[in-house]
Amino acid sequence: MQKVMTIAVVLFNGFELLDVFGPLEMFGMYPETFDIVMVAEQVGFVASAQGPASKVDRLFSDEIQHDILLVPGGQGTRVEVNNSTLLDWLTDQAKLAEYVTSVCTGSALLAKAGLLDGMRATGNKMNFSFVMSQGPNVNWVKEARWVEHDKFFTSSGVSAGIDMSLGLIEKVLGKEAAKQSAIWAEYDWHEDASWDPFAKIHGLV
Amino acid sequence: MQKVMTIAVVLFNGFELLDVFGPLEMFGMYPETFDIVMVAEQVGFVASAQGPASKVDRLFSDEIQHDILLVPGGQGTRVEVNNSTLLDWLTDQAKLAEYVTSVCTGSALLAKAGLLDGMRATGNKMNFSFVMSQGPNVNWVKEARWVEHDKFFTSSGVSAGIDMSLGLIEKVLGKEAAKQSAIWAEYDWHEDASWDPFAKIHGLV
Repeated sequence: MQKVMTIAVVLFNGFELLDVFGPLEMFGMYPETFDIVMVAEQVGFVASAQGPASKVDRLFSDEIQHDILLVPGGQGTRVEVNNSTLLDWLTDQAKLAEYVTSVCTGSALLAKAGLLDGMRATGNKMNFSFVMSQGPNVNWVKEARWVEHDKFFTSSGVSAGIDMSLGLIEKVLGKEAAKQSAIWAEYDWHEDASWDPFAKIHGLV
Repeated sequence: MQKVMTIAVVLFNGFELLDVFGPLEMFGMYPETFDIVMVAEQVGFVASAQGPASKVDRLFSDEIQHDILLVPGGQGTRVEVNNSTLLDWLTDQAKLAEYVTSVCTGSALLAKAGLLDGMRATGNKMNFSFVMSQGPNVNWVKEARWVEHDKFFTSSGVSAGIDMSLGLIEKVLGKEAAKQSAIWAEYDWHEDASWDPFAKIHGLV
């Protein structure tokens, strides 16, 4: 039987809504496997880039280890790349986490923390220069829906996080479970991680 | 110049995450046009079907009229179809709202309130019999990504709300604005409202 894995969703002011709630919709299909926890620096609520705010379940300072990390992007990453409390927490958690995932400019945070050095990774295509600037020693992949390298699953912008999360569900629970999630959510899964028309649209290839 | 339109997102316990935050990701691209407000029966926060909770900005009892309603689905709709406070609020708001939208089983709530009588509408494909049972006088469309009838935009399950919201952005701001939203969010928009492979998968056609 598959053990329960806790997913720590990292919240910060100005996180991108779909980066968080697209993947959580998919992981939420299997509550017996994935236990979702919203983690932030401070108690209360955290406002998204779009306005709506989410409730914080747990703090960085609680020092509880999680099995999976989900790091969203959004305007807020421009500030958070300089937040040593958040970067230190990511570094600490990533050591023992089974999987570390990011959506959009979330990979800029992982890169800035040094976690992606020597790894293949991707990020938001419209803001790819910002993402790359945070990790000069990362092997940035310009054309990919998502990139899996060891325990790291980094995805392209916003909606790509949904496809990546299904890729991780496939890894943990198998292809059929991932396909079933997509069908329940009436989602047209791009299951080929190399599919990426947006790299060309944004002039990266 | 396009006026600012308030979008009232109806929150209730057990709402489906992506039903809410997929469309809000897209509407949120144009904050000068769409002002997002989370509305519920009680103050504080409301827990989604998947767990994470959202902050309430405004109450039904505030009696403020909104321009656009967004009614999500989720497990909670099974309870809310019997919540006269919510149904009365929907009925009241729908009279003067410019657009009334639903995602997934959200159309069951609109139907139960009597708002869809004589209209074409759709809903979640896996739970289509539940949706239909709430509105015997609705012209239910079994195969459609979303259905536009007068001021009502009802969509199929979960992810279909994203495509519907882009359809409404097209209506309000034009095709190019909708396409631009999709590109920014790296989203593969199904812009044909009749596209619906899930009707067949769920045995409806």
